[in-house]
Amino acid sequence: MTGFTHIDSKGSAVMVDVGDKPETEREAAAEGFIRMNEECFALLKNGAHKKGDVLGTARIAGIMGAKKTSSLIPLCHMVPLTALTLDFELIEESLSVKAVCKAKAKAVTGVEMEALTGVSTALLTVYDMCKAVDRAMTIYGIRLLKKQGGKSGLWEAEH
Amino acid sequence: MTGFTHIDSKGSAVMVDVGDKPETEREAAAEGFIRMNEECFALLKNGAHKKGDVLGTARIAGIMGAKKTSSLIPLCHMVPLTALTLDFELIEESLSVKAVCKAKAKAVTGVEMEALTGVSTALLTVYDMCKAVDRAMTIYGIRLLKKQGGKSGLWEAEH
Amino acid sequence: MTGFTHIDSKGSAVMVDVGDKPETEREAAAEGFIRMNEECFALLKNGAHKKGDVLGTARIAGIMGAKKTSSLIPLCHMVPLTALTLDFELIEESLSVKAVCKAKAKAVTGVEMEALTGVSTALLTVYDMCKAVDRAMTIYGIRLLKKQGGKSGLWEAEH
Amino acid sequence: MTGFTHIDSKGSAVMVDVGDKPETEREAAAEGFIRMNEECFALLKNGAHKKGDVLGTARIAGIMGAKKTSSLIPLCHMVPLTALTLDFELIEESLSVKAVCKAKAKAVTGVEMEALTGVSTALLTVYDMCKAVDRAMTIYGIRLLKKQGGKSGLWEAEH
Amino acid sequence: MTGFTHIDSKGSAVMVDVGDKPETEREAAAEGFIRMNEECFALLKNGAHKKGDVLGTARIAGIMGAKKTSSLIPLCHMVPLTALTLDFELIEESLSVKAVCKAKAKAVTGVEMEALTGVSTALLTVYDMCKAVDRAMTIYGIRLLKKQGGKSGLWEAEH
Amino acid sequence: MTGFTHIDSKGSAVMVDVGDKPETEREAAAEGFIRMNEECFALLKNGAHKKGDVLGTARIAGIMGAKKTSSLIPLCHMVPLTALTLDFELIEESLSVKAVCKAKAKAVTGVEMEALTGVSTALLTVYDMCKAVDRAMTIYGIRLLKKQGGKSGLWEAEH
Repeated sequence: MTGFTHIDSKGSAVMVDVGDKPETEREAAAEGFIRMNEECFALLKNGAHKKGDVLGTARIAGIMGAKKTSSLIPLCHMVPLTALTLDFELIEESLSVKAVCKAKAKAVTGVEMEALTGVSTALLTVYDMCKAVDRAMTIYGIRLLKKQGGKSGLWEAEH
Repeated sequence: MTGFTHIDSKGSAVMVDVGDKPETEREAAAEGFIRMNEECFALLKNGAHKKGDVLGTARIAGIMGAKKTSSLIPLCHMVPLTALTLDFELIEESLSVKAVCKAKAKAVTGVEMEALTGVSTALLTVYDMCKAVDRAMTIYGIRLLKKQGGKSGLWEAEH
Repeated sequence: MTGFTHIDSKGSAVMVDVGDKPETEREAAAEGFIRMNEECFALLKNGAHKKGDVLGTARIAGIMGAKKTSSLIPLCHMVPLTALTLDFELIEESLSVKAVCKAKAKAVTGVEMEALTGVSTALLTVYDMCKAVDRAMTIYGIRLLKKQGGKSGLWEAEH
Repeated sequence: MTGFTHIDSKGSAVMVDVGDKPETEREAAAEGFIRMNEECFALLKNGAHKKGDVLGTARIAGIMGAKKTSSLIPLCHMVPLTALTLDFELIEESLSVKAVCKAKAKAVTGVEMEALTGVSTALLTVYDMCKAVDRAMTIYGIRLLKKQGGKSGLWEAEH
Repeated sequence: MTGFTHIDSKGSAVMVDVGDKPETEREAAAEGFIRMNEECFALLKNGAHKKGDVLGTARIAGIMGAKKTSSLIPLCHMVPLTALTLDFELIEESLSVKAVCKAKAKAVTGVEMEALTGVSTALLTVYDMCKAVDRAMTIYGIRLLKKQGGKSGLWEAEH
Repeated sequence: MTGFTHIDSKGSAVMVDVGDKPETEREAAAEGFIRMNEECFALLKNGAHKKGDVLGTARIAGIMGAKKTSSLIPLCHMVPLTALTLDFELIEESLSVKAVCKAKAKAVTGVEMEALTGVSTALLTVYDMCKAVDRAMTIYGIRLLKKQGGKSGLWEAEH
């Protein structure tokens, strides 16, 4: 036994059998950050205030990316999402953009990967749109915040 | 003027015109990390030694993800890559997996986003395959290491 | 309040939460047209009579396009369709091809976008296959004909 | 001979051989419209003025849709675009949104289909985002405005 | 009547209406083979023993390919799979790799095409990874082994 | 050294570096077969004569599948094809359909995988469309017929 559900007893990758799990309401939230230099943060902040197209584009990219989760992550099941939101916050102290993605589905398996993929795709899009100003931006702190539904019930990140 | 090349003077998102740039050899390298708890790291380390399927699967996911960059990141140009590698390193001190993705192309635009998308997709796949053991894993330190080719020449991350 | 369900109170795009809606039988029909010059219409008419490959190809393109709706339209939910048909009619008086797409699903949200995307993709394919003969073809009259199922019940276009 | 380049002498669909055509600068522009009722137009106009998320989302959808052209239109060649823009105009008299998509590439075949697919996808997205307010919206007037490059040179729509 | 469920009375391709079929447990298994020369088989055998990356990669490709079935096969319905496995066996006598793919879903339609597409994609990937050593490899014997669930009940291949 | 170009010295999968190879005219042809029972063959033969929609649909599926090669086969490079044809032949003696796919590109790497993927997707589509009549159909004899261009020059299958 490997301990990893996606690896069988012979060491091969498998798509876990979720056929016996009941369909329940599933929710997951994930967050992530991108840190940039002062010039870039200032431009984003002003742009976000007036027009919003960097974060607006990143939001659409994140939503569409989340819907592609099962075609990006090899062993993920296809889950038809019933809701998805992506919110951004500009954090002055750390010159960072925070992204939070919340996903919901009525499904036999969780939607953590959808929330995490939504956050990642949104942050990569911020990088792409701002890279002419700052190539050294760093994406960090991508993690699950919360997961609800299914046998394991509610799980929340500690801090 | 916004300072962001992907936003035009009216504040609208645009795919930058690269039609006048000459085709040159392009290279980019990016890195990223995922930190996990001791139990998970030990399982991965043993598994990696014997069978390699978690990291082997993450590598394939990263390579395929990099090839999908222009369909994930809204304003990215399609760049036919000539080479792509993804390497992993287990870092004992920080209980982390490090992923490094190197991309190459003969193109009119850079391949940074391909390298960053390769890293992100690989790390999300590690999360997916190990999440039954540790849900609190964090992805961090995704950044460009190096970029070569085109008008701006060589760029390297400072440290 | 914006009045648009896909825009939240802060003006951000959202994938509407359909998690509380019951799964019901959904149906939608959409139509659209493409007008061409006499030479092109005659070729299509003769070809359609004998071999049918322009419209046969457009039908397949429309069916496959409709299945891709949620990856094309950013805020659409993924809906597993239970049926999809695409029919064409040659309209002599207006030198036009009419396309009608009917979609069905057992779902928590409607399938209007699937029917409309099916029609659009089919008509774009007719354009592509006939453009060597007539570049000035115009696509027009793409609209919803009918929508059934869900809280709002039956809706039909007025004329 | 059928007159259609995508149908061979046996009546079968073919992807035309463009291997002997020289790579040249290609440009295409296409336009299209969506007409709505007064309430919907007013909401869009106010929203567009303040936040722009309906048209901002439609722009991203159109750009991403144009990049998917060769996977939507069966016999289209893959063309790596060097530039793509999508612009919208609100036309008060006809209660319509006008979309114009311009595509460029250095390629052996034209980019008309990319421009037309960009317009279509953008207009379908406007429909999706506004359909809760007006289901009877109609998409019309999708056509090629201009095409440049390649053997046939410049072509412009007559009016 | 044509006898083919995907062709209607006018000879047009249709996505069969499965809206009235009840959702039941569905299972399908398919197999397929690829035969190669001795040198190639020996390399694969040794590699499979020590590192497994050819077959490990083929497994991931097959799993991801199976999830794409409805976007590859024009008239297939989208079926969210609940389980998918791909197993390989090296057959010394025939210098062949055997691939077996098993798919499961709770659905209104069967998952035969998913199992067959999984096998095909895996075998194509083996070809791709080994073609530098043997270009004359042949893929053969792709067939359905078993199908369960739905009105027609259990079906098994004869030998 | 493994002998397999897609496996590096550590046993990891890699996308081979083709950056130093010159762009040349590439061609490849592949074939494959599907065998069915008499009833199914007769229906297909009659249908093919009159309406052609099974093989017409399979042809479109094959062409679109070939264009997706690099997203299906993990280590394949993206190659913009300049031509692609798919032809079918009904072989009375063996109750089989033969599919031949020819692909061309001006590229730094070959197009064998595109031709093989085109054949495979087309044959899977024939299976899908005829499976209600014969579930025991077998796909066989998928192999490369010819490959031209690049350093290794012309290669042809022996018989």
